[in-house]
Amino acid sequence: MIILSRPEIEVLVDLDSALTAVEAAYIAASEGRATMPPVGYLAFPEKDGDCHIKYGHIAGDPTFVVKVAAGFYGNPSIGLPTSNGVMLAFSAETGVLEAILLDEGLLADMRTGLGGAIATRALCRPDARRVAIIGTGIQARWQIRCLRRAMPGKPLTFTVWGRSEDKARETASLLADEGIDVGASTDLERLCRDAEIVITTTPSRQPLIRDAWIQPGTHITAIGADAPGKQELDTALVVRAGRRICDSLEQSLDHGEFSAAFRAGDIPAESCVELGAVLGGKGMGRVHPGEITIADLTGIAVQDIAIAISVLDAYRRSRAS
Amino acid sequence: MIILSRPEIEVLVDLDSALTAVEAAYIAASEGRATMPPVGYLAFPEKDGDCHIKYGHIAGDPTFVVKVAAGFYGNPSIGLPTSNGVMLAFSAETGVLEAILLDEGLLADMRTGLGGAIATRALCRPDARRVAIIGTGIQARWQIRCLRRAMPGKPLTFTVWGRSEDKARETASLLADEGIDVGASTDLERLCRDAEIVITTTPSRQPLIRDAWIQPGTHITAIGADAPGKQELDTALVVRAGRRICDSLEQSLDHGEFSAAFRAGDIPAESCVELGAVLGGKGMGRVHPGEITIADLTGIAVQDIAIAISVLDAYRRSRAS
Repeated sequence: MIILSRPEIEVLVDLDSALTAVEAAYIAASEGRATMPPVGYLAFPEKDGDCHIKYGHIAGDPTFVVKVAAGFYGNPSIGLPTSNGVMLAFSAETGVLEAILLDEGLLADMRTGLGGAIATRALCRPDARRVAIIGTGIQARWQIRCLRRAMPGKPLTFTVWGRSEDKARETASLLADEGIDVGASTDLERLCRDAEIVITTTPSRQPLIRDAWIQPGTHITAIGADAPGKQELDTALVVRAGRRICDSLEQSLDHGEFSAAFRAGDIPAESCVELGAVLGGKGMGRVHPGEITIADLTGIAVQDIAIAISVLDAYRRSRAS
Repeated sequence: MIILSRPEIEVLVDLDSALTAVEAAYIAASEGRATMPPVGYLAFPEKDGDCHIKYGHIAGDPTFVVKVAAGFYGNPSIGLPTSNGVMLAFSAETGVLEAILLDEGLLADMRTGLGGAIATRALCRPDARRVAIIGTGIQARWQIRCLRRAMPGKPLTFTVWGRSEDKARETASLLADEGIDVGASTDLERLCRDAEIVITTTPSRQPLIRDAWIQPGTHITAIGADAPGKQELDTALVVRAGRRICDSLEQSLDHGEFSAAFRAGDIPAESCVELGAVLGGKGMGRVHPGEITIADLTGIAVQDIAIAISVLDAYRRSRAS
C-alpha cells in the first residue's frame, strides 16, 4: 500500500495533468457517469468544527476515492491549521485500499483552484486580460496559480483585493516569491469596474460585488458560496448575467451563488447549465462577447476523485521510470 | 500520526477493555449521546462489491472515527480476502487525523463478536450452559472467543453447526488450536432443541431456526441479518419471544431479524427494546427464566468508534510504559 505525505504529494503533483483530469471529471459528472452519494457530515459546534466525507466513483475508473476533510475554525488561535484531511484510494475491482494521501488539505485547495481555472478559461472572452481576485486567502493564490497554468499563452494581469491593505500586499508578496507578478488593491469598486475577469474567493455572507460595477462582457467565477447563507454577488448581477454556469445544479440552486435569485423566483433552474455540459459540448457557454458570464463552483466529489487519481498516476510513473 | 498495521493491532487489542468500551458505547447510543449519521454506501454491481462508510462521535469523547469497509464477494476466487477496510481516528478537539488503523476488517469482526457476547451475557438465563453456534464462518469463531471472555466464570459448552460436516469440524479444529474446546454438528434441529443459548451467524435469506425447536428459556443472539432480505429465525419464533432486544430499533425493524414480523403486523415496534437501554438499566431485559429472549444485532457505528478508541488507548499505554 502507498502512503504519501504532503511533502511527497507536493513533489508529485503536476498541475497540467491534474487540470486535464478534473476537466474530464466535470464532463463525466454531467453525463451521469459518476456516482457521488450525498456528502457525509459531522458537526462539532462546541469547537466550531465540522467534518465532510466526500466519496464516489467515475464509471470505468479502476479506483474509487473517499475524502475526509475536517475544518476546525478555532485552530489558528492555538497555532494549528484550520483544515485537516486525508484521501483514501481503493481499487474498484477488489476493494483493496491502495493508497492513503496525507495531503492535509493541499489537494482540496488545489482542485478548487483547478475548478476555477477550468471554468474561467471556458467562459471568459478570448481577449480578456485583466483579472481581479477578490479575497486574500489561500484560494486567492490557488486561483491565480491555476489560471496561469490553464492559460499559458495569455498575458493575464492579476490584482488582488482585500479589505486590509496589508493582507492584499502579503498575498502579492507570497506570489512574487513564486515569480508571479500580482498587484494589490483595497478599492473594490474600481478594481471590478476595470476587470475583464473577476474571481471571488471570500466566505462573505453579504453580496460584495455590486451589479453596477461589472462591465458587459466580464466573466465572474465565484467559489466562496459553499454553504447556506454565503453570497458574494449581488442578486441583481446574477439575474443580469447572460449565462449562468455551475458545477452542480443541485448545490448551486440550494446553497450556491444562484440560490438567492432562484429562491426569489428571479431565475428559473433551466437558465443554469452545468460546467461539465459546457466542457463536453452539450451545454452552451459564452455566446456573445458582450454578455456577462458567471460560473458558480460549490465543489463536487469528482474533483477530489480526479486529483487523487492524478497524484497516484504520477506516483506510479515516478516508480516505473 | 499513528499508523498501525493489522499485526500491530492484533498485539495491542485487549478483548476485556474493548468489551467494556463497546458496552458503554451501546448505552451512549441508546441515551442519545452518540452522533451516527446515515451510513455512506457505494455499490460496484459488476464486481459484486460494495463499500460502507460508518462514522460518528460519542459526546465527550476526544476522538471521532470514520470507518471505510469494502466487501468484494468475488475476491476469494482470485485469492484475495472479501473484506478490506480502514479506520481513521480524528481529534474531536482540532480535527487533526490522529491515527490510521489498517486493520483489514479485524476490528469489524471483533466488534461484532463483542456485541454478540454483550447481548448474550445480558439476556441469557444465569444458569445457561449449552451454546449452539449456527454457521462456520469467521463470526462463529469470534462469537465463541468473545463470549468466553465476557463470561469467564461460566462453564459454557460450545457446539458449532454447519451444513457441511467438514466445515463444522474445521471451525472446531481452528478453535482447538487456540485451546478452546468446541463440538461440531450437522443436526440443526437436535442442536437447537438441546441448546440454552443459540447464536446465529449465517447470511441466510430463509429462516433456518424453526420455532418448534427452541425450548422455553432459551436466549438467541442473531447477527446475520444485516441487510434487506436476510432472515435466520422463523417469524413465529420472533413473535413468540418474550423479549425482543436489538442494537438499533430503526435498523432491526427495517432490515434486521424483527423486520418480517414487524412488517406483517405481528409485533409492534414498542415491543422491541434497544440493547443499550437494557444495559443502562432503562429498558427491561430478561424478566422470567422461562421466556425466550432474542437479541438482533445489525451493527452500529458506535461499536466501531469504541473499538478503535480502545485500540488507540492501548497503543498509548504501551508507549507510556
